Amino acid sequence: RRQFRGERHISLVWAYPSVLPLGGSDVNFLAFSFCRWIKFEEKVEDGGERWSKPHITVLSLHSLFELRMCIKKGTVLLDLEAMAVQTGERSLRPEVRKKLMSVLLRSPRHHTTQSHLRVVAEFSTACCRGECWLGASLQSNQFKKKIPAGAEVSNILVGEVDFLDKPFIAFIRLQKAVGLGALTEVAFPSRFVFILLGPRAKSKAYHEIGRAVATVLSDEFFQRVAHQAEDREDLIAGIDEFLDELTVLPPGKWDPTIRIPPPKCLPSPHKRYQRARTQQFLEALLKSKARPKHVSEELQRTGRLFGGLIKDVQRKAPWYWSDFYDALNIQCFSAILYIYLATVTNAITFGGMLGDATDNMQGVLESFLGTAIAGAVFCLFAGQPLTILSSTGPVLVFERLLFSFSKDYSLDYLEFRLWIGLWVAFFGLILVATEASYLVQYFTRFTEEGFCALISFIFIYDAIKKMLILADSFPVNWNYKINDVTLYGCICNASDTGRSRLLMVGRVPNWLESANWSLLTKTECLQVGGHLVGNSCNYVPDITFMAFILFLGTFLCSMMLKRFKTSHYFPTPLRKLASDFSIILAILIFCGIDSLLGLETPKLVVPSEFKPTNPQRGWVVFPFGANPWWICLASAVPAILVIILIFMDQQITAVILNRKEYRLQKGAGFHLDLFCVSLLMVFTSVTGLPWYVSATVISLAHMDSLKKESMTSAPGEQPKFLGIREQRLTGLVVFILTGVSVFLAPVLKYIPMPVLYGVFLYMGVAALSSLQFLDRIQLLLMPAKHQPDFIYLRHVPLRRVHLFTLIQMLCLAALWVLKSTVAAIIFPVMLLALVGIRKAMECIFSRQDLSWLDDIMPEKDRKEEEEKLQGSQEKEESDGEEVSKRGKSCAPELPLKR
Amino acid sequence: RRQFRGERHISLVWAYPSVLPLGGSDVNFLAFSFCRWIKFEEKVEDGGERWSKPHITVLSLHSLFELRMCIKKGTVLLDLEAMAVQTGERSLRPEVRKKLMSVLLRSPRHHTTQSHLRVVAEFSTACCRGECWLGASLQSNQFKKKIPAGAEVSNILVGEVDFLDKPFIAFIRLQKAVGLGALTEVAFPSRFVFILLGPRAKSKAYHEIGRAVATVLSDEFFQRVAHQAEDREDLIAGIDEFLDELTVLPPGKWDPTIRIPPPKCLPSPHKRYQRARTQQFLEALLKSKARPKHVSEELQRTGRLFGGLIKDVQRKAPWYWSDFYDALNIQCFSAILYIYLATVTNAITFGGMLGDATDNMQGVLESFLGTAIAGAVFCLFAGQPLTILSSTGPVLVFERLLFSFSKDYSLDYLEFRLWIGLWVAFFGLILVATEASYLVQYFTRFTEEGFCALISFIFIYDAIKKMLILADSFPVNWNYKINDVTLYGCICNASDTGRSRLLMVGRVPNWLESANWSLLTKTECLQVGGHLVGNSCNYVPDITFMAFILFLGTFLCSMMLKRFKTSHYFPTPLRKLASDFSIILAILIFCGIDSLLGLETPKLVVPSEFKPTNPQRGWVVFPFGANPWWICLASAVPAILVIILIFMDQQITAVILNRKEYRLQKGAGFHLDLFCVSLLMVFTSVTGLPWYVSATVISLAHMDSLKKESMTSAPGEQPKFLGIREQRLTGLVVFILTGVSVFLAPVLKYIPMPVLYGVFLYMGVAALSSLQFLDRIQLLLMPAKHQPDFIYLRHVPLRRVHLFTLIQMLCLAALWVLKSTVAAIIFPVMLLALVGIRKAMECIFSRQDLSWLDDIMPEKDRKEEEEKLQGSQEKEESDGEEVSKRGKSCAPELPLKR
Repeated sequence: RRQFRGERHISLVWAYPSVLPLGGSDVNFLAFSFCRWIKFEEKVEDGGERWSKPHITVLSLHSLFELRMCIKKGTVLLDLEAMAVQTGERSLRPEVRKKLMSVLLRSPRHHTTQSHLRVVAEFSTACCRGECWLGASLQSNQFKKKIPAGAEVSNILVGEVDFLDKPFIAFIRLQKAVGLGALTEVAFPSRFVFILLGPRAKSKAYHEIGRAVATVLSDEFFQRVAHQAEDREDLIAGIDEFLDELTVLPPGKWDPTIRIPPPKCLPSPHKRYQRARTQQFLEALLKSKARPKHVSEELQRTGRLFGGLIKDVQRKAPWYWSDFYDALNIQCFSAILYIYLATVTNAITFGGMLGDATDNMQGVLESFLGTAIAGAVFCLFAGQPLTILSSTGPVLVFERLLFSFSKDYSLDYLEFRLWIGLWVAFFGLILVATEASYLVQYFTRFTEEGFCALISFIFIYDAIKKMLILADSFPVNWNYKINDVTLYGCICNASDTGRSRLLMVGRVPNWLESANWSLLTKTECLQVGGHLVGNSCNYVPDITFMAFILFLGTFLCSMMLKRFKTSHYFPTPLRKLASDFSIILAILIFCGIDSLLGLETPKLVVPSEFKPTNPQRGWVVFPFGANPWWICLASAVPAILVIILIFMDQQITAVILNRKEYRLQKGAGFHLDLFCVSLLMVFTSVTGLPWYVSATVISLAHMDSLKKESMTSAPGEQPKFLGIREQRLTGLVVFILTGVSVFLAPVLKYIPMPVLYGVFLYMGVAALSSLQFLDRIQLLLMPAKHQPDFIYLRHVPLRRVHLFTLIQMLCLAALWVLKSTVAAIIFPVMLLALVGIRKAMECIFSRQDLSWLDDIMPEKDRKEEEEKLQGSQEKEESDGEEVSKRGKSCAPELPLKR
Repeated sequence: RRQFRGERHISLVWAYPSVLPLGGSDVNFLAFSFCRWIKFEEKVEDGGERWSKPHITVLSLHSLFELRMCIKKGTVLLDLEAMAVQTGERSLRPEVRKKLMSVLLRSPRHHTTQSHLRVVAEFSTACCRGECWLGASLQSNQFKKKIPAGAEVSNILVGEVDFLDKPFIAFIRLQKAVGLGALTEVAFPSRFVFILLGPRAKSKAYHEIGRAVATVLSDEFFQRVAHQAEDREDLIAGIDEFLDELTVLPPGKWDPTIRIPPPKCLPSPHKRYQRARTQQFLEALLKSKARPKHVSEELQRTGRLFGGLIKDVQRKAPWYWSDFYDALNIQCFSAILYIYLATVTNAITFGGMLGDATDNMQGVLESFLGTAIAGAVFCLFAGQPLTILSSTGPVLVFERLLFSFSKDYSLDYLEFRLWIGLWVAFFGLILVATEASYLVQYFTRFTEEGFCALISFIFIYDAIKKMLILADSFPVNWNYKINDVTLYGCICNASDTGRSRLLMVGRVPNWLESANWSLLTKTECLQVGGHLVGNSCNYVPDITFMAFILFLGTFLCSMMLKRFKTSHYFPTPLRKLASDFSIILAILIFCGIDSLLGLETPKLVVPSEFKPTNPQRGWVVFPFGANPWWICLASAVPAILVIILIFMDQQITAVILNRKEYRLQKGAGFHLDLFCVSLLMVFTSVTGLPWYVSATVISLAHMDSLKKESMTSAPGEQPKFLGIREQRLTGLVVFILTGVSVFLAPVLKYIPMPVLYGVFLYMGVAALSSLQFLDRIQLLLMPAKHQPDFIYLRHVPLRRVHLFTLIQMLCLAALWVLKSTVAAIIFPVMLLALVGIRKAMECIFSRQDLSWLDDIMPEKDRKEEEEKLQGSQEKEESDGEEVSKRGKSCAPELPLKR
């Protein structure tokens, strides 16, 4: 039996609704209709200069029946020698046969003089009807790239002639696919040829039959049949099978002239095959029971000490070099800039807050240094190098409490902290050794999304809070009256006491002696002990408004540029570029606007000298000396809280980053990640730098900026999400840049803080909008008839969905309140409680409901899996949708969404 | 033969995929599937508490064939007496028959205990499985309202029983439609019943047959057949006809689980009928040739003096009283507020500019008074009372030229203007008498859209220009240094000369003698002759930024609220309300924000005293005395220019407002409108008020705020655009309010000007976005593959479309330049030139192309019409789409747009 060659089959149909005259060389077609099927139908629009959008072929059932009749009655020539095409039909009169031969042999030449699109592919200088159409020529070259090598073409020629009194039909399969010259716009070999020539006045019907045969020939299953067919009956059986699988739309309820765009997701041919043969489907079902379970290979317990860590290293080691050369892409450059700015802003913000909380024992410079070293080390050695380390809110809260405790009990803060850090690292290593990351599988989507939503809300809340603080530092005089301009002012009042004090210590600068007090600036005035008097001293004009414009502008501009990819304007590469660089572009645009206007908005200030922020401390913390000896042991108690915090924070982030829908190829390394974090604890504790753990939102932003998508292949096919550029280089460069930021101060000082807060707002909103949780919150506000066709809504009653959402919202609110009060220290424990709440929900919700709304807890896996399999094949089919919903690569509401 | 009753046919299918046990009252269905077809399919989702969205029924061809077989083999009982349903099948064994009867008689009771949705419709207190579902009950009540009276129900019952070894099938038509009790959720009589009971294990197949029979029964044509069928063969013929009309989608290219939402537009059943019977289609074609031509009745010439005017009055008179009581709707209230604010802003703006141009001979108060009187009179007596009169830009330019001419040649401006006005009115009456409005039909879409785009651009340009002027009046100190706060100030400098001058004339106020100069405000200081010194005197903090925030905020908020109607959140009435009141809400919101913050932003100031702005003039202009006598005659020359201007401006607006796609019921009155405008010219000239003419953008906004849409009838049907609330009251009230605005000053003074400029920007953008011209400009920026499926793109080559767009853009640019230079006076003549250019384009474009892109010029009408008819039936079908595209009620790109 013949083998099925050619990955994809291309059919082109020419249908000439006009009369095809014989004799005389001045062929003059008045109109012509020209279509092609790559995967979907495309039609040359009136005027012959434009391919329509690819669309689903909509046929009438009638034309398919007519096609069946054609195959039944017409000539079928299988395995013909190339170019030995003969009519082979004895029933025709000899003179008609001769004419027919003449038409068939001449038709290629007619085509070259008529169809602009095809001609230019071969002779790009050929001009037709006095018009040259270069666009088509360009299109054709691009077009050829999209067709996989090894493709074969089918040619369908349909026409009217005036010498036939009944239709002449031929279905020809060539023994070897050969190039048929200038028939198609791209030079691929042809195997199938279908010819339908008939008397006049039925051109519409012929055209429809041509479309029908093209549709049938572009069907993967019929192709297989046609390749293997031994006689006419095999072909008819193939058509019957095709007919049996047709989807039909009732008349009067649908307008057949609407061109249906291709769906985002297609049922896989495999499934279609299953559906066609129920027996095979059942077999496949049985087979699928043996498929790997929900628990991924990364999380399986080995039962040996450090077994998980060793397997992690074994899994990641082969990818190590590719982790560097996979980064050679322009997209990585954008990612570096984006994440660098986010990291620097984060380092400054947390550094400032830590300095505030610990009396500058850990300040901005320590934050920069720690971020750079810890981040770079993690990126070099961790299991998931896409993770970005950062100080996080809970750690900050702990440091604040620890510092005030140390102060109250006169303990040396850094030494105390060193011991806690060492204990944490020790506990961490125990968790690694006992493969505790195994517990990660109890973090279902409920936990992940709750945590992720919380962190996102914190980002959004912080961005807005910082803007309000900024507005407070640059207060607007809301009661300013334009008419009272003469009454406003602020003067430096020479305070005699201040001045005399300065004189006493002999510190009055020389210039002051001769200076006019009214010419002193604010700083000078305060320096020399003056004080400011006046009703405009406390106000700063314009800055606050400008800051809000920059803030919202950066946010909206980032959003807009990111969405620009899905707009319909400008060519795809340009849109992709704008989308990839959206945040950098937004930052640049608003830095530019800020520079142009020249207002004194607050700018980014990075430390420019390399020395500890607090001069009382050095670069290394000594373990003994300042505190009583038993502190070393007592430190174990707070260390337990910290290790819970670190474990939860680290692992939830890791679970989110390693989700299946991101299609990571190089595997995760939960144990290795925790191992790295633990070792870094030792280092940061000894050097007195802040502690670091994976940061959810920035890491998600990092991954988002590294998404790979396929270039569209066949017209109408949707670009597919291919995965993430997994590599270590972007993270590494980001942290190296963070380290050398001290030297970049002259450039960085042009970046206004409101712009960076805008970026934070964007990151929070972007992370939020990827959550199913948010979709469900939106459902609360929607009347049922407007709700999108989410797959879980088809299976779970709406009230149950709402209940689930409300419980999740309550948990979130509780966590938020907790985080804001002094109880913040037990925050990590409460995160653990989320897992318990999820467990308790199994009493309220049926397993079926939970399996749609959330994942299933591991111990029930097998049972549920079986239930689902027995349940409905429908769910089976939509699984892909659900997974991809989470990855946003193919949302289930997309088909036909308006 | 039986008559076809019931406007619409409703079928409901119950399909029980589970086993239906006999005996024992504890019926326990595990799952059930329940669907209904009103017009489209709706399914009860898993859990039984929620109707799915209405969608197109997608069937497999196979199930239709099985249905055909069922009708062929099963029991067919036609014209049964009500309630005499018997199995009537002799082939069944007696005990099976008995059981069957028992199931059929009992099934209603099963239903009442199971299907929540239906039960609550009848017994809204019934609780099932311990859960009461009130939502469905409410839904049902609402639902009943949507079904037209006289509808009949078809019931389809499909189930499995374990005592049958082969399926039992019955198709029953009752002689008289009767209520079958609690079978359906709404109590409508049933006529058709289809029963399919069979052995187990094929439930899926039975369910599909049930869906197939429901689809067939919900088909309008099959219903007719089923009503009139005399035997089984007739039914089968009906199904075959149905099969023949099916639309089919190839397997593998479409996912059949996707629910296709109903299309926005359906082919009319009439057309479907045509397509089905070619002969009848041709007849219909011949008939359609006799349909009324493109020239509407309003524009047909009578050939008598004032014949058009008389016919206009005759046409409008019968509607006169309805023009008042048709306004009784909440929507009109919103429209009044919106248009009132727009009119007042316009009156102030144009009043200010006119005052500037004419040395206050016509000022803001004259503008208010004139707008109020002219507008109100027009609304009371005009042919199209939806029109809003206003001063327009070209008239302003003319007044400016006229005033400077009068000044240069020492003529009395108002008297000169009076004569011009009288001549214009005279010419206007001549145009009315000679029915010159007949020429309006030469204004094709090319002219209309060009003019409308120009006016919209002017609105947008003016709004932005005014904001920049505002920014100039409140300059920001861009170089403000926060540290230098002590160095800024502005003091009132006592100018000795000024003071002594005041002393000399004895006008020094008492308080000044004792006053401290530094305590004087800016106004006081300038009053007493002081001058301001200091580096902050020329700057105003914050106001400019605040103004821009209010401006953009109002614009974006209006846009957002307007679009809120098509969002998916909140119930429809709420969304409709928010959308109807969008502009008022936006104004209120931003007035509120402005008041709260309390900054001194520039506010709306209306004149509060009733006297001529310039004290040198009175309320009546005398025709003689100030100028030489021959000016009366010479005035005719400029009057010619003015009448061209008035005629073009008035009539293009009238054509736009009376477009077919707005579906106005009460007819237009081109002659009557011009007549009113002419008479008002006399009045405004005599009283020295500004001249008024129809304002395109405000009138369009007026109509837009008065749109009527149908409440959705069947689920899935799109709300239809029903027309405009045509009445005289909104306009009248707007102008009365404008007149009494003098007394509303205390309220109006809270409205900041930037908010009103934001409304102007919105009006300009809204008017622009309704133009096909703008769609075509967007096409210039789109790669071909992303372009929407506009109907003209299917028929006109893209380059021709682009060429057409570019020519239109060039014309627009030329008009814009003209308007901005001194040549502005010939602007009306250039508008006429647009018609000529359109005419000349017939040399470049084929008639076919122009008929797609533009209308056809009248004299070619008949010929073109014939050509089109012969051309393609496709165009015929899409005509509806094209028309509605312009009315934006059903855009052709909407089906399946993502």
